[in-house]
Amino acid sequence: MQLEELREELRSAIPTIPDFPKQGILFYDVTAVMRAPELFHHVTQALASRCSGKEIDAIVGIDARGFIFGAALAYELNKPFVPVRKPGKLPPEVERIYYVLEYGEGELEIRKDAVSPGDKVVVIDDLLATGGTAKGTVELLQRIGAEVLECCFVVELPDLKGRDQLGQVEAFSIIQYEGS
Amino acid sequence: MQLEELREELRSAIPTIPDFPKQGILFYDVTAVMRAPELFHHVTQALASRCSGKEIDAIVGIDARGFIFGAALAYELNKPFVPVRKPGKLPPEVERIYYVLEYGEGELEIRKDAVSPGDKVVVIDDLLATGGTAKGTVELLQRIGAEVLECCFVVELPDLKGRDQLGQVEAFSIIQYEGS
Repeated sequence: MQLEELREELRSAIPTIPDFPKQGILFYDVTAVMRAPELFHHVTQALASRCSGKEIDAIVGIDARGFIFGAALAYELNKPFVPVRKPGKLPPEVERIYYVLEYGEGELEIRKDAVSPGDKVVVIDDLLATGGTAKGTVELLQRIGAEVLECCFVVELPDLKGRDQLGQVEAFSIIQYEGS
Repeated sequence: MQLEELREELRSAIPTIPDFPKQGILFYDVTAVMRAPELFHHVTQALASRCSGKEIDAIVGIDARGFIFGAALAYELNKPFVPVRKPGKLPPEVERIYYVLEYGEGELEIRKDAVSPGDKVVVIDDLLATGGTAKGTVELLQRIGAEVLECCFVVELPDLKGRDQLGQVEAFSIIQYEGS
């Protein structure tokens, strides 16, 4: 399926919920994508196409919706899947990062032995908003010696300029919602 | 791959970490399975075989490691994936359940429209210990009208009698660790 056609399908499939999780936030409910097997398949294929031709050592998924898209992608590409998790979920030794979010703050952890130094990885999450979580994940991966080739998202809210947070790391998203 | 052979591989691949997340708990680190693409593939195939011949409307994954195995399985089977989540992550309307765990307590939510009444579902999680989370998930699904065909796990600790918590619902696990 062409990206443009997939965007059309996503646009009609993903509902928006106002004032969730907080007043003034418009929530894009990507769980609708997972509930539609064909759409989930096309999204995974689009992410896989984006990865094709790259030498990738691991797919990194961000806790927790990034696990869903990341695991399907890792399965499709036959690549290792590495979870980046909220604190206290991974056994030692872990590397931890603290970061600031649009509404609140966050902490993430990764196993120190999750990648080998120099490993090339692609990061997957469902949505790129202000980019705090993605930035934290990239920094965490770089600290344990990984080279982050790209961060891939299903949905991007470009007005929030999340991709500007990622420094030299490229960002790819399937669908972009302007004016949100 | 035969189940017996897969069990052997899992036994040598899954490390155990003593006293995590609490003193006296032996942690089975299933992230090692996700990091090994062939093994992850075989585990997904074993779960898919278990589902074959069943009329299944959706695969339900439990937050958050159940998302990883559940998403790969849903992708493989071309079935809808439904996440059961910790509170505050899913937009309304949700059904919520409070339950007691071996070390602590928990709450889980599901979208009320996640399944249609009478839908047949299979629940996936990485590990069955005392069964509190699985029991909560089954009850949540039954409340919104789903019929739970089975709960499937990668690892089971049979001494903790988790499957006894599931009432009439069958439990399947790939590998069992006795005496843990």
